[in-house]
Amino acid sequence: MTMSDALRFDFTCPIPIAEYPRVLLAHGGGGRLMQQLIGRMFKKGFDGLGLQADVDAAEVVINGGRLAFTTDSFVVHPLRFPGGDIGSLAVYGTVNDLATSGARPLCISTSFIIEEGLPMETLWEIVLSIREAALEADVRIVTGDTKVVDRGKGDGLFINTAGIGLITHDRMIGPAAIEPGDVVLLNGDLGRHGIAIMAAREGLQFETEIESDAAPLNGLVQALIDADVPLHCVRDLTRGGLASALNEIAAASGKGIHVDERQVPVREDVRGACEILGFDPLYVANEGRMVFFVPEDAADRALEILSSQEQGRGACRIGVVRDADAGRVTLTSTIGATRILDMLSGEQLPRIC
Amino acid sequence: MTMSDALRFDFTCPIPIAEYPRVLLAHGGGGRLMQQLIGRMFKKGFDGLGLQADVDAAEVVINGGRLAFTTDSFVVHPLRFPGGDIGSLAVYGTVNDLATSGARPLCISTSFIIEEGLPMETLWEIVLSIREAALEADVRIVTGDTKVVDRGKGDGLFINTAGIGLITHDRMIGPAAIEPGDVVLLNGDLGRHGIAIMAAREGLQFETEIESDAAPLNGLVQALIDADVPLHCVRDLTRGGLASALNEIAAASGKGIHVDERQVPVREDVRGACEILGFDPLYVANEGRMVFFVPEDAADRALEILSSQEQGRGACRIGVVRDADAGRVTLTSTIGATRILDMLSGEQLPRIC
Repeated sequence: MTMSDALRFDFTCPIPIAEYPRVLLAHGGGGRLMQQLIGRMFKKGFDGLGLQADVDAAEVVINGGRLAFTTDSFVVHPLRFPGGDIGSLAVYGTVNDLATSGARPLCISTSFIIEEGLPMETLWEIVLSIREAALEADVRIVTGDTKVVDRGKGDGLFINTAGIGLITHDRMIGPAAIEPGDVVLLNGDLGRHGIAIMAAREGLQFETEIESDAAPLNGLVQALIDADVPLHCVRDLTRGGLASALNEIAAASGKGIHVDERQVPVREDVRGACEILGFDPLYVANEGRMVFFVPEDAADRALEILSSQEQGRGACRIGVVRDADAGRVTLTSTIGATRILDMLSGEQLPRIC
Repeated sequence: MTMSDALRFDFTCPIPIAEYPRVLLAHGGGGRLMQQLIGRMFKKGFDGLGLQADVDAAEVVINGGRLAFTTDSFVVHPLRFPGGDIGSLAVYGTVNDLATSGARPLCISTSFIIEEGLPMETLWEIVLSIREAALEADVRIVTGDTKVVDRGKGDGLFINTAGIGLITHDRMIGPAAIEPGDVVLLNGDLGRHGIAIMAAREGLQFETEIESDAAPLNGLVQALIDADVPLHCVRDLTRGGLASALNEIAAASGKGIHVDERQVPVREDVRGACEILGFDPLYVANEGRMVFFVPEDAADRALEILSSQEQGRGACRIGVVRDADAGRVTLTSTIGATRILDMLSGEQLPRIC
């Protein structure tokens, strides 16, 4: 940045204060308001400083090597839920973000913001959960930090993890690389994480216990890269679910994405829970699900590779990339009607990660 | 880690639950309880996973290059104080942690945990402060994250920054490298940050306004490295102040450190405020102060280099490393008496960073 660039900087708050005088829960919900906060405030505030706002992990070239660098704070409530807890989630979330750039996760940091009064035993159980998750994801924990805030100024525990990964392939993996004709693959059924959180939070009982799908997915991505599958884009389906992830990719790439809802796997119990709660599984958060964009002629091989691993057992095709409807996501519904699948406007379910 | 190591792992909580059933504010205060939490719980929980618990930044070798990696969460209260705010603090804190390993800070991440209801204008002002601090410290902001928690479950804003730096020297800088005869240098007067926070929090008025010393110190460290000064150890003096930092270094190195209190600069207004508040400036947090350990024959040159920069104007000698009193810090007080300068036991001033 030159001095004249710096002088030209506009210091006006880029979010309309009259409309949004205060930060809302939905500003962290993965939908339209969060996009606005990132796209207007952070992109503008950090303009010229190298921010890579449209990807889950930034790529930094150091000493001629390509590294991926990412961060996520975890504020999930409650701290424990069927199938996981804030500790395992904090490891998987960052490992998966690194994997979306095709990087091999090397090491992570863990930073704890503890509310005074948290039972010591709870903290220890979460530390053990982090340990187990790191061993499973094959990532080191090299550095950390601990802060304690007064009672009533936190919510038990928040955890931040940042991570560094090594990019060993020579592809550009991201929205800019997708092409018309690409096939969209998904590694399993949708919606379990969000429903598991909701059930734990509200004390809901379903006929079967719905466990979170939270899992490390770096093994899936690495297997595709090792097999030299021409991966164009990978994205994990966390806040805002499948619909938000695809909308982000469509917008960033300027391509159209068409999804066939009849091909999107949702377990019957999850579908039932969604109906009761008024949720759409396409917008519900997952923590062990990714979409993979590959050329049509590599799709079968990619599916075979994904299916051969535990985390890809349910891998399937769910859509295609098209020139039509540029920048948008379209959906053929279960009853055969086609419509725009939009970004989430409000807040479906806060604090799921 | 081999399978037999994993099987041998002891899952008992390493903090005595009967004594500490819950996390206390002091567990985050930089004193003895925080050392216990890190030393027992995190070191044990992450055993075998590569944790480097005794340094401000971990060193990771990637592609043959030496990188520094660090993280810190900032929970300072209030968000703004004389001389800075949580935004600038979050940048300087991580930049300074990277600098303590002699690394050149390259890029940082910023992760926001916002309490619902934070004025949008406040968030923007802090984003601008982060921007300015990053430009001043010459570091990029490449990635980030935003979470929003419900009203009453946070405290306005917490920020985590993680950072990557490049180590270009071939020294081992750290407690293990200090030697008897080394001189301890300090880059300026102590205690302003903690007192500035306290004054802002409690609405105290002093005759002069005491501003935080918060500043990026990477330029100081880089200048010493560029001049090939044989730096043995560098540490910034945040939570727990000078006394805690020196105790950590003494314990980790097994050497004795002797400080002459008459040589430790404390401004008159800060000394007065400390007397009124019952604080000891040796334990008060700073955010722009570091100690540097160098051999006696390099001390004058190091002082000259430090003094030539804005952040090192007040550089001075304050002590020496000795074989005597191994693992401990001793102090000759202003009245000439010598005593042990111990680690802080309780909590002097919570949430100063």
